[in-house]
Amino acid sequence: MKKIINNPENVLEEMLEGMLKANPNTLKRIEGTDVIININSPIKNKVALVSGGGSGHEPAHAGFVGEGMLDGAVCGSVFTSPTPDQVFEAIKAVDSGKGTLLIVKNYTGDVMNFEMAKDLADMEGIEVDYVIVNDDVAVEDSTFTAGRRGIAGTVFVHKIAGAKASKGAELSEVKAVAEKVINNTRSMGMALSPCIVPAVGKPNFILAEDEMEIGIGIHGEPGISREKIKTADEIVKELLDNILKDIDYSNSEVAVMVNGMGSTPLMELYIANNAVYDILENKGIKIYKTFVGEYMTSLEMSGFSITLLKLDDELKELLDYETKAPFFK
Amino acid sequence: MKKIINNPENVLEEMLEGMLKANPNTLKRIEGTDVIININSPIKNKVALVSGGGSGHEPAHAGFVGEGMLDGAVCGSVFTSPTPDQVFEAIKAVDSGKGTLLIVKNYTGDVMNFEMAKDLADMEGIEVDYVIVNDDVAVEDSTFTAGRRGIAGTVFVHKIAGAKASKGAELSEVKAVAEKVINNTRSMGMALSPCIVPAVGKPNFILAEDEMEIGIGIHGEPGISREKIKTADEIVKELLDNILKDIDYSNSEVAVMVNGMGSTPLMELYIANNAVYDILENKGIKIYKTFVGEYMTSLEMSGFSITLLKLDDELKELLDYETKAPFFK
Repeated sequence: MKKIINNPENVLEEMLEGMLKANPNTLKRIEGTDVIININSPIKNKVALVSGGGSGHEPAHAGFVGEGMLDGAVCGSVFTSPTPDQVFEAIKAVDSGKGTLLIVKNYTGDVMNFEMAKDLADMEGIEVDYVIVNDDVAVEDSTFTAGRRGIAGTVFVHKIAGAKASKGAELSEVKAVAEKVINNTRSMGMALSPCIVPAVGKPNFILAEDEMEIGIGIHGEPGISREKIKTADEIVKELLDNILKDIDYSNSEVAVMVNGMGSTPLMELYIANNAVYDILENKGIKIYKTFVGEYMTSLEMSGFSITLLKLDDELKELLDYETKAPFFK
Repeated sequence: MKKIINNPENVLEEMLEGMLKANPNTLKRIEGTDVIININSPIKNKVALVSGGGSGHEPAHAGFVGEGMLDGAVCGSVFTSPTPDQVFEAIKAVDSGKGTLLIVKNYTGDVMNFEMAKDLADMEGIEVDYVIVNDDVAVEDSTFTAGRRGIAGTVFVHKIAGAKASKGAELSEVKAVAEKVINNTRSMGMALSPCIVPAVGKPNFILAEDEMEIGIGIHGEPGISREKIKTADEIVKELLDNILKDIDYSNSEVAVMVNGMGSTPLMELYIANNAVYDILENKGIKIYKTFVGEYMTSLEMSGFSITLLKLDDELKELLDYETKAPFFK
């Protein structure tokens, strides 16, 4: 296992400390927890947003903490859900009295633990609600999931719900727009090679030298097919075919995200984006804004995902709203 | 070779098109060239900045085109210098009459071709000057270089010279501050694994499963030692020892860049940053600002570099000056 680490057992702790030392004026850690929050939290008279999940998906989610996006990110061990008490600590630290929305990717452990944190908050009279993101069209049910998985589209939920909250909306309104994003977001990914969870020390799956996996999850969960590697154009077409048949995108405007899984060069992501653009243009789907880069990774997994968000005027305005979160660009 | 590409011969063209399609409101391409410029170029009464070099180092350099940083980026083939005529096209497109500064990484081909472009501009009466960045302390002379190589520290030159130009400085003043940055910037990198240039189709060097290379260049040029892989703390200490003995950093304030080479997860870069911070703090060197992420990559090479920039009040102000370049964060 070739990694820039010290003890595999300490990767979360040292990552969090390294992150805080890089961002001393914008982030702080709730002492005794693995929760990163906006240094200005709680922000008066603003609905707070908390997300999180297993680590290893950086910059998700702590890289999206900042004005206009998340108030807090709860960081579990690598590919492991954070515990309810940690989520509850985040809620207590960011809540300004206007309520907190939890943005949860659809993994059984995350859903259970964030729901339990909501129960803990309810008992203390803190108003909490949550949404579950399930944007991955690849498979129904999966290794860690009932229903569809939540992947890179989650970042659009952070962005748009974050903007809504910053503009002064109530909890119910922030939740409603988060659900609108979820209902209009679809994603699918693929991988060329696996990653190694530091504490495990071996690859999470094996692909032959000429193989790829289409529809893979962000923890290496199985996709829909294992195939001989194809060209960028063919791969993009296969991913988009699955996304576009899921909801009706005809005559619509979309935001596009081409998300690197970890070790795919930006060069290849732009090559993929070139193909995405051409296919959507040929179908008469208008691209409002495009995001190319690493947003939701899987350690050093090689591959990428495509996300389409179908927009209306409200979503466009909120997508464009300023954020200071360092990794949303 | 596992890559998200179509024909290996077309990677530059498709990357550029994918980049433009992702940034239609901020970037444009000079037709018939591989030059990307700010869509608002030439910017009236502003010294223009042009950089570039071989591709494969994305986001360098086109990702740093934008208000407050570069006006143009000349994109060569992968790991190959752009030709003088391409650099000259960039100069002609961005020059507003106030002169253009070329920021060149110290590789023999780049230096020769950018100098020839300056000669072409001289003949047409366009005022052009240039600086050569040579921040890599690892080795004197290298595969493609006489003297020291230019690596990730180049991005600090883009940022600070870009701010100076945006504030209305003259060409001589922009050049002077660029040289001040160069004189105060030192970097060194390491790799755990190689990358594959698409048109070559095989790794650019080979490391055993338990080996790393210290002091490697961003094209896989040899470093100072090939060693058994060590812990993050030990690797960081080795890189910093070399950087810190090169100029006197005692009692100084620095900007830190921990730059991923391509496939190193952000988690590991933060673990490295944690070690950087502790070592600098123990030595009484004050960290003014820290940048952790991918700035100057080598396709999918695994590894990272550390850059220290010794700051004064002028450099701090210019480092903080706003930029809209999407990949400087």
